[in-house]
Amino acid sequence: MIRFALIGAGRIGQMHAANIVAHDRCSLNWIYDVHAPSSEAVGAKTGAKVARDLDEIFNDADVDAVFVASSTPTHADFIVRSVQSGKAVLCEKPIDLDIAKVEECSKQISSAKSLIQIGFNRRFDPGHGQLVSAVRNGEIGDLEQVIISSRDPEPPPKAYYLAAGGMLRDMTIHDFDLARFALGEEVTQVTAFTSNLFDTVAKEIGEIDSAMILMKTASGKLCHINNSRHATYGYDQRLEAHGSQGMLRSENRQPTSVERFNAKGSHWRDACEFFFIERYRQAYLKQLESFMDTLEAGSESKVSFEDGRRALILANAAYRSVETGNVVTVNYENPLERAS
Amino acid sequence: MIRFALIGAGRIGQMHAANIVAHDRCSLNWIYDVHAPSSEAVGAKTGAKVARDLDEIFNDADVDAVFVASSTPTHADFIVRSVQSGKAVLCEKPIDLDIAKVEECSKQISSAKSLIQIGFNRRFDPGHGQLVSAVRNGEIGDLEQVIISSRDPEPPPKAYYLAAGGMLRDMTIHDFDLARFALGEEVTQVTAFTSNLFDTVAKEIGEIDSAMILMKTASGKLCHINNSRHATYGYDQRLEAHGSQGMLRSENRQPTSVERFNAKGSHWRDACEFFFIERYRQAYLKQLESFMDTLEAGSESKVSFEDGRRALILANAAYRSVETGNVVTVNYENPLERAS
Amino acid sequence: MIRFALIGAGRIGQMHAANIVAHDRCSLNWIYDVHAPSSEAVGAKTGAKVARDLDEIFNDADVDAVFVASSTPTHADFIVRSVQSGKAVLCEKPIDLDIAKVEECSKQISSAKSLIQIGFNRRFDPGHGQLVSAVRNGEIGDLEQVIISSRDPEPPPKAYYLAAGGMLRDMTIHDFDLARFALGEEVTQVTAFTSNLFDTVAKEIGEIDSAMILMKTASGKLCHINNSRHATYGYDQRLEAHGSQGMLRSENRQPTSVERFNAKGSHWRDACEFFFIERYRQAYLKQLESFMDTLEAGSESKVSFEDGRRALILANAAYRSVETGNVVTVNYENPLERAS
Amino acid sequence: MIRFALIGAGRIGQMHAANIVAHDRCSLNWIYDVHAPSSEAVGAKTGAKVARDLDEIFNDADVDAVFVASSTPTHADFIVRSVQSGKAVLCEKPIDLDIAKVEECSKQISSAKSLIQIGFNRRFDPGHGQLVSAVRNGEIGDLEQVIISSRDPEPPPKAYYLAAGGMLRDMTIHDFDLARFALGEEVTQVTAFTSNLFDTVAKEIGEIDSAMILMKTASGKLCHINNSRHATYGYDQRLEAHGSQGMLRSENRQPTSVERFNAKGSHWRDACEFFFIERYRQAYLKQLESFMDTLEAGSESKVSFEDGRRALILANAAYRSVETGNVVTVNYENPLERAS
Repeated sequence: MIRFALIGAGRIGQMHAANIVAHDRCSLNWIYDVHAPSSEAVGAKTGAKVARDLDEIFNDADVDAVFVASSTPTHADFIVRSVQSGKAVLCEKPIDLDIAKVEECSKQISSAKSLIQIGFNRRFDPGHGQLVSAVRNGEIGDLEQVIISSRDPEPPPKAYYLAAGGMLRDMTIHDFDLARFALGEEVTQVTAFTSNLFDTVAKEIGEIDSAMILMKTASGKLCHINNSRHATYGYDQRLEAHGSQGMLRSENRQPTSVERFNAKGSHWRDACEFFFIERYRQAYLKQLESFMDTLEAGSESKVSFEDGRRALILANAAYRSVETGNVVTVNYENPLERAS
Repeated sequence: MIRFALIGAGRIGQMHAANIVAHDRCSLNWIYDVHAPSSEAVGAKTGAKVARDLDEIFNDADVDAVFVASSTPTHADFIVRSVQSGKAVLCEKPIDLDIAKVEECSKQISSAKSLIQIGFNRRFDPGHGQLVSAVRNGEIGDLEQVIISSRDPEPPPKAYYLAAGGMLRDMTIHDFDLARFALGEEVTQVTAFTSNLFDTVAKEIGEIDSAMILMKTASGKLCHINNSRHATYGYDQRLEAHGSQGMLRSENRQPTSVERFNAKGSHWRDACEFFFIERYRQAYLKQLESFMDTLEAGSESKVSFEDGRRALILANAAYRSVETGNVVTVNYENPLERAS
Repeated sequence: MIRFALIGAGRIGQMHAANIVAHDRCSLNWIYDVHAPSSEAVGAKTGAKVARDLDEIFNDADVDAVFVASSTPTHADFIVRSVQSGKAVLCEKPIDLDIAKVEECSKQISSAKSLIQIGFNRRFDPGHGQLVSAVRNGEIGDLEQVIISSRDPEPPPKAYYLAAGGMLRDMTIHDFDLARFALGEEVTQVTAFTSNLFDTVAKEIGEIDSAMILMKTASGKLCHINNSRHATYGYDQRLEAHGSQGMLRSENRQPTSVERFNAKGSHWRDACEFFFIERYRQAYLKQLESFMDTLEAGSESKVSFEDGRRALILANAAYRSVETGNVVTVNYENPLERAS
Repeated sequence: MIRFALIGAGRIGQMHAANIVAHDRCSLNWIYDVHAPSSEAVGAKTGAKVARDLDEIFNDADVDAVFVASSTPTHADFIVRSVQSGKAVLCEKPIDLDIAKVEECSKQISSAKSLIQIGFNRRFDPGHGQLVSAVRNGEIGDLEQVIISSRDPEPPPKAYYLAAGGMLRDMTIHDFDLARFALGEEVTQVTAFTSNLFDTVAKEIGEIDSAMILMKTASGKLCHINNSRHATYGYDQRLEAHGSQGMLRSENRQPTSVERFNAKGSHWRDACEFFFIERYRQAYLKQLESFMDTLEAGSESKVSFEDGRRALILANAAYRSVETGNVVTVNYENPLERAS
């Protein structure tokens, strides 16, 4: 029985709370949120103790793991405090929007032995996960190309944009991680095009709403990501892999399999699952189970701090390509140096 | 907050217990099973009180509703006792395998005011339910034909066969209900063919494993059901409706949408969801919510005792067609009389 | 090089003429139609000689095969005259609408050695044909059930109805043949429901527009056919087979594979191919090739006179079931006797 | 009736010959090939006159149009000779592999009034064509992104590689044209990654077998192309468009719609149509019809010389991006100048 403390009682925190409470292998001992009414509501519903102060959590010997679902700027600090308290930590992505802060955090936790897992939930999606397993198992022979399509159903509000740190670090970062996961090999070169095509709110603050990225690995494997901040047909989340023996596609999911045929045409279905809470419901659950499995087995993190760090380095490389009009060689060792 | 007592702690009972406990609109106050260790296990896990005696349940004024998930021969009696205790009752199908017992039960509850809902869960499947709603909303104009395909993944053991009362009353009864639900009009004529084609256990006890049925309504609408006790590709559950303006199909569901393309061909996916627990997970939850909605609104049952009774009358008519080699005219008024 | 004479220059005859002319293994030597302008038009386009009299065709030693695409009442006679002239014959279905006339024709050709092939083109559809081959090759183990869905896009005009001999003999006869082809075993019992549900022209003359049929073979295999005289989404032509090791479906074809996704939903496509000329274009071509293969090899007819006869016997059995309200045992030996 | 002369009697020439002969709006008057037995074979089969010398064709006043299906290095010259003879010309892609030769050809035909259509057949594919029409008709609102997947079934032999002028000019050139067609706006920037991942024959001669390309238009629209010289599942030809109101996909085509369901999974189909002759059969026919429509109407070419020229300029820009590691700004005015 793994005893969790949850930091963050917003929308995503509430979902994690429900998953922890419903699961028979763990319990929710503490809930904390800077906004006290939010943590109190979760406490009332789940029976978790409401922490007034984070020290209550980090000092409680009966807490095995901290689930960090608070705002992005707090992530790095809470990871450090968790591991310094000897607790495992499952932290929502990203580690931070600033690579300098990630490097600093990296140094502080370098000697820690606690399990750290970053919340790249898509690795645990039953479809995407099955695809990557099939690639690893050699089902399509030698992997050659990966294509990721990822489109949000609708643009966020201005406040979200201002805090998000740019589309490539906020939204595409999931795809950079998925690309690394599917490729099974490090990306060495990045080139990218971005546009503001439709969202006037984004335009006003100089932010993009559309992006296309190419990446290449040392052995020559190729990867493409396409992104958009809107999709009228729902949250578009697809992964495609090509190898010497075939192709695999993890296609979108619709809530039902009802097909309609009439004079206007045939074969249409529901729109896709609306957004991440609906689309990745099972992925969030499997992510939690993977974290518990790893913690109990004492094995290596399935999505390590380094995975979180490298996804951000790729996002930064893509931004540099857009700025310079050059193909960018990725520098994982010294990401603070400006690469060619 | 609706307070449930659950009778039956077997496999399906445990699923209902988990649904009730997890739902924020209801609580599980009591659990009972003739096999005490089963009820104790559910009690330990959920916090429900373990009843030693059914009177504890029926006499508890703090019980709003009884969920009957015990063995079929107990259903009619528990329905009667529930409504006589002034409690709402949600009872697994069928009411009983013997129409005489159902008629007797019908008399006993004729003056009761309690809500009775029969567990024909497929009406609440998101796909099948959406299809029937679309038919009711006139999306395919005037309804003309309904086709139901329903195949279990594998045959049951001998003991199950012996208790089940025959395939048409045990398995097809779901499809008779779904046919009535989709047609929106009573069936007046039935003709049927059955076979034992593959299951030697069934054959040994004179039981069938395959069936095809035709039905007709007073206005001439046509309906076909096909059944089998096995399907290597998983639980096959499809519903198709034809109307003057088009066709609707509620197709099977696979666990993922992964597609594979290789030299042997293209476009294959997972097998279907394995069986009813997996396939109708959401249907069971929506059935529970529908029951609570109806109870709170004081409105008419969505799946009434009469619905349960009529599904059994259709199963009996199909058996009579097989026996006599005649088309059978359905007699809902006096089902104990042998119809032509 | 097989030299054809074609009798009938209507819509279907013109299509056959084009197929013969375009094919590099045959030539069109003669065209005949009772309506001279029709045969002249085909002659002008294809270079075929226009026969003024059928004797010109039957007496021409340079004709290897007669393609009969004239009106139904002429079929039996033209089959007899073709084989008596020592010519192979490929004759559009049905042989005749009257079983007595078919029996008479059967006697007259009993000693003939010419190849006779009946135009049940659906056997040669790439999809349906591949399905039946897979069944024969044991891909789904022992065959257990067959389901045929067959719906015309729109009802015919009154004149067509009056000449067609009833829906089961005109339209369903294709499905009776496909059922026999897919089952690979003779049907012994038939039961059927029919309705007039939408077509007022049909109603006026006492004709049906909707039908559902069940059939059973000696070994207990089951088969269902559903028919309608309209389908807003195009010509609906599907075949489904269930066996001990799996299911096969031959689904509808759309002209393109364009998928649309928008706020109203996802995944719709074109309507189905409009009607038989479009849907079975390849089937007609493969039928022609099969006929030529058989003729050149001197092997047994792939779709024999007896196949044409038995499809009609099944149609008559279905009519008898509707009339009597009984399951009908099929009598292939003496179809003129009224069976139980 | 349009009277064609066909230059080139190889595999693709034979297909064009058959299409011309079978079509009721045109005739094949002449056939020419440098390899006389090839032209004689086509002549014997179709009745076309076999030209010994190209002058016979260019000097024949009874030739309306020349169909150029000879080897690539002859295209530019035959276009010039055709228009100088006052004949319309339908020429297989590409115009030439060398942009300098294309520029020279461009000058020579600048004053000609003959119709010139370049054989970018994919524009006429029923699926791809329907998708682009839907985009033009505003079905998905404002176009934002286009994604083209194009993979050959298997790599060509060494001799083909050596003559082909590089994968981006030989294979991708179809996709550059399709991108321009779908975008409806000129591409201004190109960036590309290429690899040799699997084909040792290609590797030996320094040729690539895999490519990914990004393009951007002046208004910020984004486009991605992915290519491979092999695909075990058949010729992979897909087109996807995203707009403010939805997504359109033109998916692959399989020869049948047979679906198989068994214990290993569900829902697989035939491999894709094998290669361009099979996949684009209808596109080649519609291309011919479009050419005839344009010629008869005297309207502007649907796929002009300039379209052929610009596709080559994009291929060259992609090569320059690979060489320099820079994003390349496309220079349509002076393609012989090296752009940044």
